[in-house]
Amino acid sequence: MIIQKTCTPASLFSSDRFSVTYRLYGSEKEARSKAEDICIEQTVEFPADEVPEGVIRDHVFGRIESFAPWGAGNFKAVISFANEIAANELTQFLNVVFGNSSIKPGIRVEHLDLSSSLLDSFRGPRFGRQGLRDLLKAEKRPLLSTAIKPMGLSCEELADLAYQFALGGMDMIKDDHGLTDQCCSRFDERVKRCAEAVQRASRETGLPSLYVANITAPSRLVQKRARIAKGAGAGGIMVAPGIVGFDLMRELAEDDAIGLPILTHPALQGSFVTSMNGMAHGVIFGQLARLAGADATIFPNFGGRFSFSRNECEEIVQATGEPMRHIKSIFPAPGGGMSLSRVPEMLETYGQDLIFLIGGGLFKHGPDLVENCRYFRKLVEKM
Amino acid sequence: MIIQKTCTPASLFSSDRFSVTYRLYGSEKEARSKAEDICIEQTVEFPADEVPEGVIRDHVFGRIESFAPWGAGNFKAVISFANEIAANELTQFLNVVFGNSSIKPGIRVEHLDLSSSLLDSFRGPRFGRQGLRDLLKAEKRPLLSTAIKPMGLSCEELADLAYQFALGGMDMIKDDHGLTDQCCSRFDERVKRCAEAVQRASRETGLPSLYVANITAPSRLVQKRARIAKGAGAGGIMVAPGIVGFDLMRELAEDDAIGLPILTHPALQGSFVTSMNGMAHGVIFGQLARLAGADATIFPNFGGRFSFSRNECEEIVQATGEPMRHIKSIFPAPGGGMSLSRVPEMLETYGQDLIFLIGGGLFKHGPDLVENCRYFRKLVEKM
Repeated sequence: MIIQKTCTPASLFSSDRFSVTYRLYGSEKEARSKAEDICIEQTVEFPADEVPEGVIRDHVFGRIESFAPWGAGNFKAVISFANEIAANELTQFLNVVFGNSSIKPGIRVEHLDLSSSLLDSFRGPRFGRQGLRDLLKAEKRPLLSTAIKPMGLSCEELADLAYQFALGGMDMIKDDHGLTDQCCSRFDERVKRCAEAVQRASRETGLPSLYVANITAPSRLVQKRARIAKGAGAGGIMVAPGIVGFDLMRELAEDDAIGLPILTHPALQGSFVTSMNGMAHGVIFGQLARLAGADATIFPNFGGRFSFSRNECEEIVQATGEPMRHIKSIFPAPGGGMSLSRVPEMLETYGQDLIFLIGGGLFKHGPDLVENCRYFRKLVEKM
Repeated sequence: MIIQKTCTPASLFSSDRFSVTYRLYGSEKEARSKAEDICIEQTVEFPADEVPEGVIRDHVFGRIESFAPWGAGNFKAVISFANEIAANELTQFLNVVFGNSSIKPGIRVEHLDLSSSLLDSFRGPRFGRQGLRDLLKAEKRPLLSTAIKPMGLSCEELADLAYQFALGGMDMIKDDHGLTDQCCSRFDERVKRCAEAVQRASRETGLPSLYVANITAPSRLVQKRARIAKGAGAGGIMVAPGIVGFDLMRELAEDDAIGLPILTHPALQGSFVTSMNGMAHGVIFGQLARLAGADATIFPNFGGRFSFSRNECEEIVQATGEPMRHIKSIFPAPGGGMSLSRVPEMLETYGQDLIFLIGGGLFKHGPDLVENCRYFRKLVEKM
């Protein structure tokens, strides 16, 4: 054995560990072998028999806390890791949870259980459900949200749509996630015009309404666009962590100079949930979204033009609200190919702590966009 | 129809478009419907019948350029998009290619064909294959690389390993990708000690050798750690774009104040390639790695402890070298559970333009690490 010992003292490691629940596909023997492999692969990534006795084996290796049959052909393994190997970094935490294991078949992250000291490393959502309710003076009812689009309209035209949406009583009016800084609607001008339009409508109705600017952008520009949005009077920002990384969203959430509610968008995250090899819907759209500071999480509603099942959506809802110490609960915001006729079914599934996100559907109900929005709002308020 | 027209002039759009080749699973009818859906979903994300005639339909909609049977139960669709909707942003380019489509089942991105004007938006790798060869004075032979680990060793112990590796003639000695800023080996001290150790060994052998620091970190710290690494004398940096985003890697590559070779690590990217729903190996580990400025791309070798096939690895190699205008070709760096006995088979598969990445395997050959490295180098040089 080439490495005979290490001078790293065991005192550097606390007894506090976080746990990851993995679903492991295969026979019992295969699944157990995968569990053992994760303990090594996600930590030392080194032949176990070449690791000396002592602190590395005792503290750095992952540890199988439990292993049991789960569903047909798969097993549940709870594996714990020392807090210290995540180094209080969200990026390294993600790497320990699923970095190399993402490249191995039949491993799915089903749940995260963070120790209290690791949770203390993260501030979480600034507003959360209650904070958003307070901002929008919406004590109990579901919130109403829509998106300005289609891409290709001018800033003036998009701002006019935003104005009509706000006049119709929409709580949150967001950029479509494909609107960034295209030639037909430059970011700076769009955000200025849309924020102004929503504020103007809000003054007319007497109802609070937030314009949410999409700041998903090249890394160096994300913070800059967030500040521009804030300065222009936007009431929130939207970011796609699948494109810019979860940690950049966390930075935005913790930045007191921004201090706006954050919507997280699922673009480019689909591959994680659409196979046996990835993360559960509740982990990526619920737990990680909260940990990274989103106040609301957008995901495709069941029965729309995407593929999520009702169960998968309920799993996300569960993860947005389950206890996570000081990390606030956040709003689920199901959307994608929805129509007004689905409002009752959705209320039944999601309850009142919900943001309805309806885009194209608002254009289908009748010829007057403002009236369509008012109809939508009344429909929700009377349920 | 609520939106009757747009004042956006067609002159804002050039005729230059980029194309994405998708593999679409299902019957011909289903696959064609998916192709049509992508044209809308990835652009306007709006009911097509509510989009007015004119510029949006003519330029913003995706366009099916070809559609044909491919393999059993899947079809090949080449879809083009206006350059302008990608807004010269790598982030928005990724969003157009696969943002929402990632959430829909049975869609796989198989190839990217960027127009020349869109390619001009990206600088690509600073060094590429030839640049790395020049740095390492290795005209034709494969390069040799290894990683310092296991996590849990002290900085001094890791630096001692780095020294032995360099003394044994390794060209590039990288941090294990799990080493960030843990209590047992803080980033600043590790990088300083390892860079010094590798430089010292290099002076002794007279052979160039680069220490490559892992700078995957919370977003705000990535650039800072890159600068610290540069200042400490590191010869390269490693980053995992699956964790911090592709665009952050691009920024590092384009930053003249850093100017170091970049290794890209595949952590957290596995879910993209392990299902019918994602991106081809060549796209994510080849084309996107190049576009985002990596000089070498690390991926799991076939036959190791990961699941990639020989064909999939060859697809990556193809993508690292195929013509892409001014975007340099880069080194494939297969690794993961490799042993010295596989060197001949790998040379046969990959040819000479290859970085051998062997970690634990170097500890298995014999009791002397330096001798093991020398043996490895001789083995490669004589092939």
